[in-house]
Amino acid sequence: MVVADNSLFPHGGKTVERIMEPEKAREKIQGLAAIPVGDQIARECTSIAYGFFSPLEGFMPRADVDSVTKDMILTSGYVWSIPIIFDISDEEIKQIGLKEGDTLLLTYQNQPFATLDTEEIYSYDKEDMAQRVYGTTDDKHPGVRRTYAYKDKFLGGKVTLVNPPKINPPFDQFWHPPTELRAKFVERGWTRVVAHQTRNVPHAGHEWLMKGAWLAANADAILVNAVVGEKRVGDYIDEAIILGQDMLRRSGYFRDDIHLTSMLLWDMRYAGPREAVFHAIVRKNLGCTHHMFGRDHAGVGTYYDTYAAHRIFEELPDLGIKPVKTLEWWYCPACAGIAYEELCGHKGQEQKFSGSLIRSILEDGVKPTRLIFRPEVFEVVAECAEKYGFGSPFVTENYLQNRNPVMSVPPMEFHGKGI
Amino acid sequence: MVVADNSLFPHGGKTVERIMEPEKAREKIQGLAAIPVGDQIARECTSIAYGFFSPLEGFMPRADVDSVTKDMILTSGYVWSIPIIFDISDEEIKQIGLKEGDTLLLTYQNQPFATLDTEEIYSYDKEDMAQRVYGTTDDKHPGVRRTYAYKDKFLGGKVTLVNPPKINPPFDQFWHPPTELRAKFVERGWTRVVAHQTRNVPHAGHEWLMKGAWLAANADAILVNAVVGEKRVGDYIDEAIILGQDMLRRSGYFRDDIHLTSMLLWDMRYAGPREAVFHAIVRKNLGCTHHMFGRDHAGVGTYYDTYAAHRIFEELPDLGIKPVKTLEWWYCPACAGIAYEELCGHKGQEQKFSGSLIRSILEDGVKPTRLIFRPEVFEVVAECAEKYGFGSPFVTENYLQNRNPVMSVPPMEFHGKGI
Repeated sequence: MVVADNSLFPHGGKTVERIMEPEKAREKIQGLAAIPVGDQIARECTSIAYGFFSPLEGFMPRADVDSVTKDMILTSGYVWSIPIIFDISDEEIKQIGLKEGDTLLLTYQNQPFATLDTEEIYSYDKEDMAQRVYGTTDDKHPGVRRTYAYKDKFLGGKVTLVNPPKINPPFDQFWHPPTELRAKFVERGWTRVVAHQTRNVPHAGHEWLMKGAWLAANADAILVNAVVGEKRVGDYIDEAIILGQDMLRRSGYFRDDIHLTSMLLWDMRYAGPREAVFHAIVRKNLGCTHHMFGRDHAGVGTYYDTYAAHRIFEELPDLGIKPVKTLEWWYCPACAGIAYEELCGHKGQEQKFSGSLIRSILEDGVKPTRLIFRPEVFEVVAECAEKYGFGSPFVTENYLQNRNPVMSVPPMEFHGKGI
Repeated sequence: MVVADNSLFPHGGKTVERIMEPEKAREKIQGLAAIPVGDQIARECTSIAYGFFSPLEGFMPRADVDSVTKDMILTSGYVWSIPIIFDISDEEIKQIGLKEGDTLLLTYQNQPFATLDTEEIYSYDKEDMAQRVYGTTDDKHPGVRRTYAYKDKFLGGKVTLVNPPKINPPFDQFWHPPTELRAKFVERGWTRVVAHQTRNVPHAGHEWLMKGAWLAANADAILVNAVVGEKRVGDYIDEAIILGQDMLRRSGYFRDDIHLTSMLLWDMRYAGPREAVFHAIVRKNLGCTHHMFGRDHAGVGTYYDTYAAHRIFEELPDLGIKPVKTLEWWYCPACAGIAYEELCGHKGQEQKFSGSLIRSILEDGVKPTRLIFRPEVFEVVAECAEKYGFGSPFVTENYLQNRNPVMSVPPMEFHGKGI
């Protein structure tokens, strides 16, 4: 008999699930005022409705935004670090005659998608928000830019998915919402699982970050949780990231019974330490007991100290998921292999796994030594470039405009205004 | 200000120290009945007097032997697993007219060495003892053989070192009694230290057992604690073991600030799981918070399950030192490097670090690949062979008879009978 760690509850005590059967929903949505939403909000609706963001049940009202941006805590008393915002313009509000108390139908890909029970319509000082969340108002920071790009009014209220999206290949095999994933952990007897956040095709340094974290956590398993969201030109394409990560298991660099690749719909905020806290909470919701944090976790530019994400947890109450803090792994010719910053004494001889070196290798298409990049990962990345990337493993304008969508909303009957 | 972990007490609460200044002792010992002791008892007197065996203050009386062999606990309530015995023949007892209550002078290397306050003279069933401690009465087991070789009477009583031995080079630099070692840990800010038991010249597999244990313990440092005691033909010579282990630090495979090599005077009992408990207690006394246990820890032949030493701690109260259980590290050609049994999925491709392979490499004198054996260790082992081993890194009859002693007892004045 396998017993999971019963002390490990989702954040807030239970997994939020706000999904309505489309059959049931069909009637409910007819006649609602409808408004189309963009990719970010569609992803966030999905993440909320499946419980990735438990205890959030919807988009934040002003009081939560205030409390989260100022004190990193929800008004309910649970730690939360990033405001989750539904933005709307005054024009849209006027057009559909939206009032507090109204239920709004959110459409996506021209289909009914979710409902939003509008509890509050408010505005918020975006500079204040940026300064508190990102520690800067510099609009070169992509999170600040995202904040400034919000329309002028915000809606607070609960979200219900009325037409759950289909996750398309190759992502479908990695789509494990919290309830399903937690059941999988129990089934496999995993009671200690360390989460690995990624937006990278893995090189041997990433592989050892995971192996080291697994050792440090005395873990049963590693959950790779790839962030799938808004892409920028030059990023790795999502398909190469997720299939490359999974290839480490498929080609034996991790045993089958200690490794699982999964995904999270989320647009990176690059909020450094605050984003680390957000990542920890989401992975706690997935059933993880530990979360690996390396250097510059979720950071960008020079806005955050290298190990700011290591320190922030010391200021917080116990989150029920333990940060596993790791320094760097590199190739050491004197050790003739992988070496860890805190263990290896061959100072000055280290050959760091530079992301840009790996990128240039992939661009050149020359297979690197398996010491630093696994040939099976190289091959699957090349396949992804052909199959999904219009010839490139990196995001291009062409990819941005013509890629297969990660999720598709099925057709659903709707008669109403605004769609 | 560096504060050590104050919750970490020596076993029994304080470090036993039973050493008398030779100036003071000179008077006390005159006229005592004297009896020469062999190497094993001389080593055990030293380990007792410096507190390695805290809370033991001397050799065990019958009640402790009973309790330890039956229930793995001292009559004082502290866990202990191996009887510590002073054996003596009826003839010797008669010759010196020994009675309970007498203080006996123990001589070693023809010099006064220690006193024993004889509290009890008793006999004990050696087969019972062997069966309980070793799980067998088979005299092919070296621990059983050692038990059967004890003379017929045992003395229980406290030991005081009256003429502390000088530890000879190259061992002197690794001789750190508990009080000194604990102070060193505080000075270095080490509050989590994982102990590594060894009787081996280290290959890369041993190195990674230590590195893996350091990671798993989230340790500040690794204490290599080499057992120095009775040797058998074919063992590595002690000098090669201790200098080879230290060379891993000196040549950068471990950082200076996370690694220390030290020694323990002890004749291996090969008692498998019971010896693992003994090792844990001794290393707790040295200030360690964790102890690494690999496969076949302190075992011999097929008397114990491969991981018996991993399970025994589950049956015991918290010893104040945590076992860190490790499986095997090996070379994996598919990983192109070191791999861990529980992580690596390249089943059947592993190239194990076989002790006999390494031995044959050393015998041939052909420098192996640094992937499996570090060249600096190879060189220091070769030097030790020349300097200490009469041309061999392995123990020979010549080495057994003519080696430099590990410790020397200084000359000390004594007038009395029996010496």
